[in-house]
Amino acid sequence: MNWAKEKLFQGILIDLGMTSSKTWIDELSTFLQPEQISTSYAVLEQHSRGESFDEGKMPDVVLFPESTTDVQAIIRFAYEKGIPVTPVAVNSSLEGHTVPLKAGISLDMMRMNRVKSFHPEDLLIVVEPAITYPEVNDYTRRSGLFFPIDPGAHASIGGMVSTNASGTMAVRYGVTSDYVIALEVVTPTGELIRTGSQARKSSSGYNLKRLFCGAEGTLGIITEVSLKLVGLPESASAARVPFKTIKDATEFVTSLIQAGLPIARCELVDAYSIRAANAYNGTNYPEEVTIFLEFHGNEQGVIADAHLAKDIAQHHGAGAFESSTDPRERQMIWQARHTVYYACLALNPGLSSISTDVTVPISKMPEVVELSLSAYRRAGFKASIVGHVGDGNFHLLIFYDASDKAAVERLEQAGHEMIVAALNSGGTCTGEHGVGIRKLKYMEEEHGLSLHYMKLIKQAFDPKGIMNPGKKLPE
Amino acid sequence: MNWAKEKLFQGILIDLGMTSSKTWIDELSTFLQPEQISTSYAVLEQHSRGESFDEGKMPDVVLFPESTTDVQAIIRFAYEKGIPVTPVAVNSSLEGHTVPLKAGISLDMMRMNRVKSFHPEDLLIVVEPAITYPEVNDYTRRSGLFFPIDPGAHASIGGMVSTNASGTMAVRYGVTSDYVIALEVVTPTGELIRTGSQARKSSSGYNLKRLFCGAEGTLGIITEVSLKLVGLPESASAARVPFKTIKDATEFVTSLIQAGLPIARCELVDAYSIRAANAYNGTNYPEEVTIFLEFHGNEQGVIADAHLAKDIAQHHGAGAFESSTDPRERQMIWQARHTVYYACLALNPGLSSISTDVTVPISKMPEVVELSLSAYRRAGFKASIVGHVGDGNFHLLIFYDASDKAAVERLEQAGHEMIVAALNSGGTCTGEHGVGIRKLKYMEEEHGLSLHYMKLIKQAFDPKGIMNPGKKLPE
Repeated sequence: MNWAKEKLFQGILIDLGMTSSKTWIDELSTFLQPEQISTSYAVLEQHSRGESFDEGKMPDVVLFPESTTDVQAIIRFAYEKGIPVTPVAVNSSLEGHTVPLKAGISLDMMRMNRVKSFHPEDLLIVVEPAITYPEVNDYTRRSGLFFPIDPGAHASIGGMVSTNASGTMAVRYGVTSDYVIALEVVTPTGELIRTGSQARKSSSGYNLKRLFCGAEGTLGIITEVSLKLVGLPESASAARVPFKTIKDATEFVTSLIQAGLPIARCELVDAYSIRAANAYNGTNYPEEVTIFLEFHGNEQGVIADAHLAKDIAQHHGAGAFESSTDPRERQMIWQARHTVYYACLALNPGLSSISTDVTVPISKMPEVVELSLSAYRRAGFKASIVGHVGDGNFHLLIFYDASDKAAVERLEQAGHEMIVAALNSGGTCTGEHGVGIRKLKYMEEEHGLSLHYMKLIKQAFDPKGIMNPGKKLPE
Repeated sequence: MNWAKEKLFQGILIDLGMTSSKTWIDELSTFLQPEQISTSYAVLEQHSRGESFDEGKMPDVVLFPESTTDVQAIIRFAYEKGIPVTPVAVNSSLEGHTVPLKAGISLDMMRMNRVKSFHPEDLLIVVEPAITYPEVNDYTRRSGLFFPIDPGAHASIGGMVSTNASGTMAVRYGVTSDYVIALEVVTPTGELIRTGSQARKSSSGYNLKRLFCGAEGTLGIITEVSLKLVGLPESASAARVPFKTIKDATEFVTSLIQAGLPIARCELVDAYSIRAANAYNGTNYPEEVTIFLEFHGNEQGVIADAHLAKDIAQHHGAGAFESSTDPRERQMIWQARHTVYYACLALNPGLSSISTDVTVPISKMPEVVELSLSAYRRAGFKASIVGHVGDGNFHLLIFYDASDKAAVERLEQAGHEMIVAALNSGGTCTGEHGVGIRKLKYMEEEHGLSLHYMKLIKQAFDPKGIMNPGKKLPE
């Protein structure tokens, strides 16, 4: 493989100190400590790959800032010299966001992972970008408050902000950017700005905060995030109900929302995945399209919500409706959903997996899911679906043999058909994973003339194009 | 008054056809119908004033577009000739957004007030900008869906998007921009763009949609809005409870949120206003700081919510807690809040009123409210407070004699003290009314270096500075 060879060669050069063309690396020690600078092959190699994307370049150097001051010094330096900067933290990105495409600096934020201050009386917490959301929730739990966005992977807050991550509770609690009350950002020209305030809402100034949310590190480096928190609900009920078709299941969920039920989580799992989960867990749930629900509120309220949901399910031809408010039983009710990934993995030993996401208008979900499944089936793959039905966002999880070049090509073609179907339905090519590298080619079709204005913004903020180059917007 | 004389003079000139310096007006009829163009004095004069701001210029012409095509033709024309354009619809703005500062075109959107399409199965509606939110809710009610933002005045959706309006239900349902799923916009250079999609969430592209939300017409003209809708709750409970101090009342609300109670509305009314409401309605509610609450959900849930709220109120030294789920009784419980404005008006016959808004961190609200009241008291005014306590946003309503120049100056000085106190507490100079003209002078202090990036965006979108000039950003 050329790619591996090139990396190895780069690595040998660097390990031998043969970085003659990169004399700027020596200058870094004028403002960083030695332990904040790495050019070791292992570290560079580790910073050249993403979770499911490994076609990047080796960075020239990996830097580990420990403070906003460090970040600002690094970016000023990079701006002056025109050196590309690719930020990374937990590196759970699925679309290649953290992969350097033009070498330069890999800016590893992992040492900036502290809670800066916690203000339970203002329902907010101020954190550094590399703290993960489970760590935030561990920190705040005793106050009765929590950060309600749960994308699955143990993502960093900075990464979640940068992709505008969401997950299973978006139908009730929204997306990451809904909880970002203020940001501190080092801009691509090395200026330090604050956007937003400690007030929970504002109509003052342009909404720069929302522009940085989902910008995938292309408009600056986030060095501090102030997050709104919400109260932990007193009680929760969980439910699981099977349907004959994806259409029945989706229409059931739309009816729930129209009936004013405040769904907290709402997940669709397809029959194939339930079969996998049964095999994996030794359970015998009906092997049909299944909806998993959760309601948050007080005990009386969540029981009544589940009762009403059951009535509505029967109108949509549902099978047996299981529900409970007991924490252990709730866990069991959701078990099949929680184990989908590992269950499908167990059915496909030795294969690589890829997960991709689109979002479509809710009513178009059955059609687009069928089209997508059929595309992957024709291409010779089994795909399992996990859908956040309440907001029309779904993921396909596909297993494939990464060493089979023809299979990889067929996989990409099927993915292309899925995205085209989503866009044709009035949807978007990504609901929560972000654009990264893989979805760049859909930006023109999805955004049309708006793309021109996005590029004007990028140009205004990052005149030298040093900030995470090659991501988010096509060049 | 110079201002009135100038207007009259301009009006006479125009009525006599003496618009020699504005020959471009004649060219408008090449692409608009005669009934879409007005230079009559009465129409120009009406379009020179806002709800509580009347220091603008007369526009040269008022245009009434009836379609996106009309808007695009007008803006292309204005861009080519460098003519200022000030958009307006219902004109309920409180900060002078709709007042032409540089004459030119007043773009009256009122004829673009149709529902374009309604998609209950996708929980969304597509409307033109001048439809009001009560009209949207009349349209959707039978489907069980509604648009939950209620800023009070019968505002247009386009105006609400442009100021990112919110109101009494923001604590539960958020702000206008949270419901904007897609926008069609004619940019200041006359290009037609679409931003967002019919998908309920997306991580694709930069969030231009949120940039237009709250841009107060300075980045383009919104010609179509796709709005998310939510389900009407099955049931609601209302409650009213008095407290000794604003601090007690605020801490009570913070405790409610920390306890996970899903408050739908939460309003604070001060003792002075309750006294006014008692006089006005012939009621005898305790003349103390009073919190008005509403919970949405199922019958069992909202009763339990009110019970828990009552328990928590007692821990904060509350007076009698009244609550009900009966629609008529709910109305009565909220009566004093709903009549505050008219009750205070009745106490101050013949005076002008001004309402201003700031938002502060929740825990800072008692302190900033006290500081603000004291500033107005020292200046010789009585002020009544209405606060959206759940999100730290509060309004002062002040009555004054507009013909007393010294009083107007003292009023402005007290308003300045209030805003400085809000900013010093970590808050924002406006939570929902927007910047318009009056709050321009606080942009530098509130946004610091961020303001530079806002100006870069304005410059990129509107290179000739024709779009609502003199608003939102200081020049």
